[in-house]
Amino acid sequence: MTLHYKKEDIIAAYERVRQRIHKTPVLTSALINEMAETKLYFKCENLQKAGSFKIRGATNAILQLSEDEKKKGVVTHSSGNFAQALALAARDLFVPAYIVMPDNAPRVKVDAVKAYGADIRFCKNTQTERVRAMEEWQQETGATFLHPYDNPHVILGQSSCAYELLNQVSELDNIVSPVGGGGLISGTALTASFFSPNTNVFAAEPKGADDAWHSFNYGKIFPSENPQTIADGLLTSLGEYTFPVIRKLVSDIYTVTDEEIIEAMKIVWTRMKIIIEPSSATSLAVILKHKAQFRDQKTALIISGGNVDLNRLPF
Amino acid sequence: MTLHYKKEDIIAAYERVRQRIHKTPVLTSALINEMAETKLYFKCENLQKAGSFKIRGATNAILQLSEDEKKKGVVTHSSGNFAQALALAARDLFVPAYIVMPDNAPRVKVDAVKAYGADIRFCKNTQTERVRAMEEWQQETGATFLHPYDNPHVILGQSSCAYELLNQVSELDNIVSPVGGGGLISGTALTASFFSPNTNVFAAEPKGADDAWHSFNYGKIFPSENPQTIADGLLTSLGEYTFPVIRKLVSDIYTVTDEEIIEAMKIVWTRMKIIIEPSSATSLAVILKHKAQFRDQKTALIISGGNVDLNRLPF
Repeated sequence: MTLHYKKEDIIAAYERVRQRIHKTPVLTSALINEMAETKLYFKCENLQKAGSFKIRGATNAILQLSEDEKKKGVVTHSSGNFAQALALAARDLFVPAYIVMPDNAPRVKVDAVKAYGADIRFCKNTQTERVRAMEEWQQETGATFLHPYDNPHVILGQSSCAYELLNQVSELDNIVSPVGGGGLISGTALTASFFSPNTNVFAAEPKGADDAWHSFNYGKIFPSENPQTIADGLLTSLGEYTFPVIRKLVSDIYTVTDEEIIEAMKIVWTRMKIIIEPSSATSLAVILKHKAQFRDQKTALIISGGNVDLNRLPF
Repeated sequence: MTLHYKKEDIIAAYERVRQRIHKTPVLTSALINEMAETKLYFKCENLQKAGSFKIRGATNAILQLSEDEKKKGVVTHSSGNFAQALALAARDLFVPAYIVMPDNAPRVKVDAVKAYGADIRFCKNTQTERVRAMEEWQQETGATFLHPYDNPHVILGQSSCAYELLNQVSELDNIVSPVGGGGLISGTALTASFFSPNTNVFAAEPKGADDAWHSFNYGKIFPSENPQTIADGLLTSLGEYTFPVIRKLVSDIYTVTDEEIIEAMKIVWTRMKIIIEPSSATSLAVILKHKAQFRDQKTALIISGGNVDLNRLPF
């Protein structure tokens, strides 16, 4: 897969989605800056519609469909933030949405998808069953399958987050973002490469799901196998569209333990009064672990989402 | 006490504090709008420095002191958000801060005041002991006593919040804000009366601490006696500076039960991904209780703070 993205693609995606999403605030905390011995800027996609950056990619991908495709709807399988985001984006654009969810998906996520008016079908939680159920439904409806991250329109949609960020904070030395399937980090790296080439982009990954670290360092996609981490948004493997962008444009990938993630998450909740999910805390955990690397620089962290079950907090 | 405030006082206070505080974002939630059948704008002072709007009043009051007074420092007694705010504002302005706290003050609040470098003395948690300890310390140090809310400079500092809000959202029909001692609501009502006279200002109060409701409706200050509510920021009585402003400029005061407060708090945490304290949830609780009153209007809610003990959540 070649890197055929152009500067204009990123601007066009931003213009396409901007009226349909929140322009999320960039927050700062003097106390966390003192703690990290540097200047940090938190891009709050947890405050985004449907609680994560995923609405950007979902919206951009739907808007690229033909009128006929829109009428037939979109289908995906997801237990996570993309399910909610696609459901909401589809509703806002009057497009039917069919979401396959594993039968052990958290109740709060199922309820959210329902609240956005999407149709849901449940299946056993294996990759094979999820794909089978999705393809069956796709054939019945003629809906277009939208992959949660391994889709160029989804990646370009996610790139709008960093595009917004670069207009909110100037002269960033670094951007740190979590990596799961790689949609957010590849969109971020693409945007930085075009609009702020002196900004380094780093990925943060849980040690218990470090397939991206292996893929990045060994030069081929290592599938995520039996990942064990509290960061439930980062369990997926890199894809054929996300991997080459990451390999070429990301400066490095750092891993952190679940203990470090929980500690960082607690710091943000306590000091900044915002609810962030464990996946989003990986970036701050990386910065606190590698202080020397980031000291006295301007570093933005993308807080990817805030969808946590308040009845199951890790502290 | 007459109402001698001028339009220029509010602008001057805003200009005085604006560089020293966060311009907090105004957030919206489509789901909560659907639930409330109206358009709501959340002014997020929980994302303010030291976690509440109190830094505005503290900063404005300190900046009004003479150089000699600043050298001698400021003293107050508080177990709540004003203690943290005054400690941080004083530190940022290189002014010594002496804070009397009751010996049963929550550990997290004591730790925060310490972290901001203020001196702390503990006393028994009675009004008499708190005032005695404060006056003793004041005599020793020559520091200036700053009342947490019943002080015109504090009130004018708090007015900067609504001033900012009116520049962020145009043509508001209503602003709803919690009332405790009345510093925030009187600053809000003053600002609206000068800069947006068609905007109604309502106060939200816990039923278990409804002294402001009584004071407002019977025309004289009823002291808060043995208040029982989860909204620990709203236990105080109106003061001689705040009462007349509220009596004259606030449209009405509505009360809500602790159950309604907790329900509203949970909705905001879950849907908006921000941490708000129970006191701040009173405004949404009022709106959800009086839907007909607010239906299809533009209403702002001032989210006063986000200082909660994460180990003692009511859900």
